[in-house]
Amino acid sequence: MKFSIERGALLKAVSQAQSVVERRNTIPILANVLIEAEGDSVQFRATDLDIEVLDKAPAQVERAGATTVSAVTLHEIVRKLPDGALVALSEDGASGRLTVAAGRSNFSLATLPKEDFPVMASSEYSANFSAPAHVLRRLFDKSKFAISTEETRYYLNGVYMHVSEADGGKVLRCVATDGHRLARIDADLPSGAEDMPGVIVPRKTVGELRKLLDDDDMSIAVSVSETKVRFATPDITLISKVIDGTFPDYTRVIPQGNTRRLEVDASEFAKAVDRVATVSSERSRAVKLSLDEDRLVLSVNAPDSGAAEEELAVAYNDERLDIGFNAKYLLEIASQVDRENAVFMFNSSGDPTLMREGNDTTAVYVVMPMRV
Amino acid sequence: MKFSIERGALLKAVSQAQSVVERRNTIPILANVLIEAEGDSVQFRATDLDIEVLDKAPAQVERAGATTVSAVTLHEIVRKLPDGALVALSEDGASGRLTVAAGRSNFSLATLPKEDFPVMASSEYSANFSAPAHVLRRLFDKSKFAISTEETRYYLNGVYMHVSEADGGKVLRCVATDGHRLARIDADLPSGAEDMPGVIVPRKTVGELRKLLDDDDMSIAVSVSETKVRFATPDITLISKVIDGTFPDYTRVIPQGNTRRLEVDASEFAKAVDRVATVSSERSRAVKLSLDEDRLVLSVNAPDSGAAEEELAVAYNDERLDIGFNAKYLLEIASQVDRENAVFMFNSSGDPTLMREGNDTTAVYVVMPMRV
Repeated sequence: MKFSIERGALLKAVSQAQSVVERRNTIPILANVLIEAEGDSVQFRATDLDIEVLDKAPAQVERAGATTVSAVTLHEIVRKLPDGALVALSEDGASGRLTVAAGRSNFSLATLPKEDFPVMASSEYSANFSAPAHVLRRLFDKSKFAISTEETRYYLNGVYMHVSEADGGKVLRCVATDGHRLARIDADLPSGAEDMPGVIVPRKTVGELRKLLDDDDMSIAVSVSETKVRFATPDITLISKVIDGTFPDYTRVIPQGNTRRLEVDASEFAKAVDRVATVSSERSRAVKLSLDEDRLVLSVNAPDSGAAEEELAVAYNDERLDIGFNAKYLLEIASQVDRENAVFMFNSSGDPTLMREGNDTTAVYVVMPMRV
Repeated sequence: MKFSIERGALLKAVSQAQSVVERRNTIPILANVLIEAEGDSVQFRATDLDIEVLDKAPAQVERAGATTVSAVTLHEIVRKLPDGALVALSEDGASGRLTVAAGRSNFSLATLPKEDFPVMASSEYSANFSAPAHVLRRLFDKSKFAISTEETRYYLNGVYMHVSEADGGKVLRCVATDGHRLARIDADLPSGAEDMPGVIVPRKTVGELRKLLDDDDMSIAVSVSETKVRFATPDITLISKVIDGTFPDYTRVIPQGNTRRLEVDASEFAKAVDRVATVSSERSRAVKLSLDEDRLVLSVNAPDSGAAEEELAVAYNDERLDIGFNAKYLLEIASQVDRENAVFMFNSSGDPTLMREGNDTTAVYVVMPMRV
């Protein structure tokens, strides 16, 4: 194998690959990236056995071939090379070394046989569709904060992407919850997605996918089967196993009958929550919301450290209500609001509360109260 | 006690105080800042029993008095208040609470009696002088990287500030070493410093002092005794115990007879060291320098991961020399060079090497070689 490639293109391809690689590996080859040169491009493939990422970059290939080297070391080297450098990679197959040369720098890296690299089995996908990057970005960005980190509830360790109905029409929906709060985000259903099976996309995959979605207008090809999901741009393909479990029936958690409506500037609200929470104890982080005619008082009472109180002018005209929440949860959902005011719909101080942005029902958040 | 203060002034004063406070304390009052309001200013005092910092800020004092509250909580609150806010702090002495009010925010913080706050005993200082902030900044910034972190060699856990001689004249000198590398930085001796006892300024004090030195032209009042050192600006006073130990005779470590002179662009050198070190093993981080007529080859050979080599054009005209160093140490001393080329003076591959910036002998670094 022998090829030359521009440093920037190489860095981009290797960056994505190395981030999939787990830092601690008992299987040595999983620390490596598989490099395959052929025609006028080179493919970089990395896997942790659950996710596989494949990056393609244009290169001048002098001699086709393939090998594997440490993804982290190769990435570090390329990162440190000067911008604009032309990098030559070559391997003679006999020495067990990959040579990386750029300018006056020369590296010789230990390789492992390409035959040992675990390439993910190809699958039949039951649904194929494409969606603009910004649509997928919204679906996952606004839901991922609610992903559970409890390993025992593994079926909550991801975002549930599925087809659902809203306002009588079909939508592509992402839901995440950890039992304390829930995010439900909808987008127009792309054509071809109608028969998509619902899948739980693991947290790590959501993180890796995010890197494909920076370019607003990029069209992302999505393929889904019962066991796998695949996201692809012209250069990068991300294939991931999905979580083998059943996502709970979240619809029962979303309150339908909440009628007490509070409208508040989300940014002012978040700042006030953050301020009063300063005195709350590390453990509970409880903030009390006291609602009265167009008036919201946020308060914290922590016997050890002190008390805090802040008043906000809001729109509210229902009867008085006191309700407590975890400050962190309130901050997280308030930070999802970026265009209009935050609208909270309460029932009683013991019932789940619903939050949305203005009257937009395509992004809905539910948060459980806590006793204060 | 009752006073009003502008949020910016309060934040600045409390920031410095809270950074001295240790995060984990067995003595509760050490987590607190002592607030003393009198006349037209307020003093904020914090200590970890080794360092005491005293910040003064102008305020409208309505009722003089003093109390103590959690430094971290007060800092967090003030940090989160809107810019430009006027903050009112009051305490009635009976409730054991300090009220902090700004706009529609109200906080009530637990206090501890001011009488319990350990104020550092005042000292007689045997030398008092003043030095511009940029002079002290250079002395400590260029030496602190070499401070030892080995707790057993406690006498190396700081910067040794003392009076010494260079080129026949007296200088104010800072030295730090961990046994592997050494930094020796000189400045003109300020008048009044002639009889200053040599003191070892602890690492944490060096860090806190740094925050007083941002304003180039600020004059810093320095006072030194056998046991304490004091740095003061008009607003901030930092008093610290010095390390009770004897700094070793570092002069014997600084090679005098090294004659092999290498001159190299420090930034190019650092980048090359960084690149070749990528393949070195985590533990050793050894880089080999091979010198020949106007030519430097940097190389690393790590059996597990691979090898790396890079050539640099340099000025060198002595006989061939191979010498190994810890990459981290080379990077750290090279990063001290900011105006001229780095000049290395070698003897043999087993002897300490000296580094300076051009022909400037007021900042000299020594680094021990390692076998490669």
